[in-house]
Amino acid sequence: MTYCVSMLLDAGMVFLSDSRTNAGVDHINTFRKMSIFQRPGERVMVLMSSGNLAITQQLVSMLRESMAAQDGRENLWTAPNMFEAARHIGETLREVHNRDADALQKFGIDFTAALILGGQIGREQPRLFQIYAAGNFIEATPDTPYFQIGESKYGKPIIDRVVKRHTTLDEAAKLALISMDSTIRSNLSVGLPLDLAIIKTDALAISSHVNIDAKNEYFAMIRNRWSEALGHAFAELPDADLVDKGDEFQAQ
Amino acid sequence: MTYCVSMLLDAGMVFLSDSRTNAGVDHINTFRKMSIFQRPGERVMVLMSSGNLAITQQLVSMLRESMAAQDGRENLWTAPNMFEAARHIGETLREVHNRDADALQKFGIDFTAALILGGQIGREQPRLFQIYAAGNFIEATPDTPYFQIGESKYGKPIIDRVVKRHTTLDEAAKLALISMDSTIRSNLSVGLPLDLAIIKTDALAISSHVNIDAKNEYFAMIRNRWSEALGHAFAELPDADLVDKGDEFQAQ
Repeated sequence: MTYCVSMLLDAGMVFLSDSRTNAGVDHINTFRKMSIFQRPGERVMVLMSSGNLAITQQLVSMLRESMAAQDGRENLWTAPNMFEAARHIGETLREVHNRDADALQKFGIDFTAALILGGQIGREQPRLFQIYAAGNFIEATPDTPYFQIGESKYGKPIIDRVVKRHTTLDEAAKLALISMDSTIRSNLSVGLPLDLAIIKTDALAISSHVNIDAKNEYFAMIRNRWSEALGHAFAELPDADLVDKGDEFQAQ
Repeated sequence: MTYCVSMLLDAGMVFLSDSRTNAGVDHINTFRKMSIFQRPGERVMVLMSSGNLAITQQLVSMLRESMAAQDGRENLWTAPNMFEAARHIGETLREVHNRDADALQKFGIDFTAALILGGQIGREQPRLFQIYAAGNFIEATPDTPYFQIGESKYGKPIIDRVVKRHTTLDEAAKLALISMDSTIRSNLSVGLPLDLAIIKTDALAISSHVNIDAKNEYFAMIRNRWSEALGHAFAELPDADLVDKGDEFQAQ
């Protein structure tokens, strides 16, 4: 499994992905799930993937091939805007489907892939998309300024409560790491190291792309202090006084 | 969908269930998912169910029929201990499967059911079980003193962090309500009113069985103040200072 999350804010975008893949619990590996494509000053894109690793790796290879080919066909370097970039990725995913889906089906394997694409091209505003296995996609709006793929549920409540369009990039990075920590604690198939990328609005280049492993002091602090802070917040809420209420229903 | 959670503590047991059922988003109803069986001073049991409502309602009806039949066959009144009670429920669920599973399959409907059973019989310690659709079951231990069924992921991180065997019943009720609140916020298919039941160790009767709806002041307080407390806890953690770290990877 995988957990990836991205937020689209006034100040820019934050992307965070884990790196664990598993095919059964005895076949656990570390693979990067984040790819970055940038021509500083012109365009910058971050792509994160979950699902069948053979599918998503093939997708990224095909995207890179078409960028290198210079054969006049559209690719991520020539896409005039982020919408066309998302469409190009969706179409490339459909090519992978055409090649592989029948063969996978014979082995009872579903064609699973989910992608998050965010970035900025030229003077267009930064945009964030979630792309489905069928190659179709949706775009983040001010009402829903974030997307998650993979094992998304454990880390969703804290994001739902905190994220706003005016959240700063540092706050958003903290929020993404707390959400990731909740996921890692509850699900063995999500694990370190993490890839964190940050794009500032109108910078047209990656501001940060860092690797976070068990030795990272900031993440270690988050892990300890968030747990502690939750414990305090829990202790400070009044207890229920619900123990001796009797049976309102007069059950059988 | 459904969310039910139960905790087994030194002081007793806490059970909480929502009441929303849905067959598609335009067919949402309120049904109780908690059943209580007690003979005060002798035995007390709480059963919570998720899955296909036609299956779980049939199960509970059959359990009640066999309790009323007095035909010498084992039922929940005659089970000598909680293990046998769990086995009886599992076997009754297999009877439902024998009756209905083939017919359901013809309509492409899976036989889904998940149950939580907790309680105490006579001098035996209180015990907590999770029963699967196949009628098999597992028992809570000191290492894992709680079970969840239904839409369990949103509300799991806070329980993982807080629950201990020595948690008091009032604290556990608060914890269950916070976990439910996180679930309700993130998933439309889980909704009010809630059923809360509490059994004290060795009381051999229900201590509390209350209905919690939108007008309940304690739950309203939890909903407001927990969100606020999370916001404060979030704000108090140092921000990330990760924005201008450059590209560690020197990506393409």
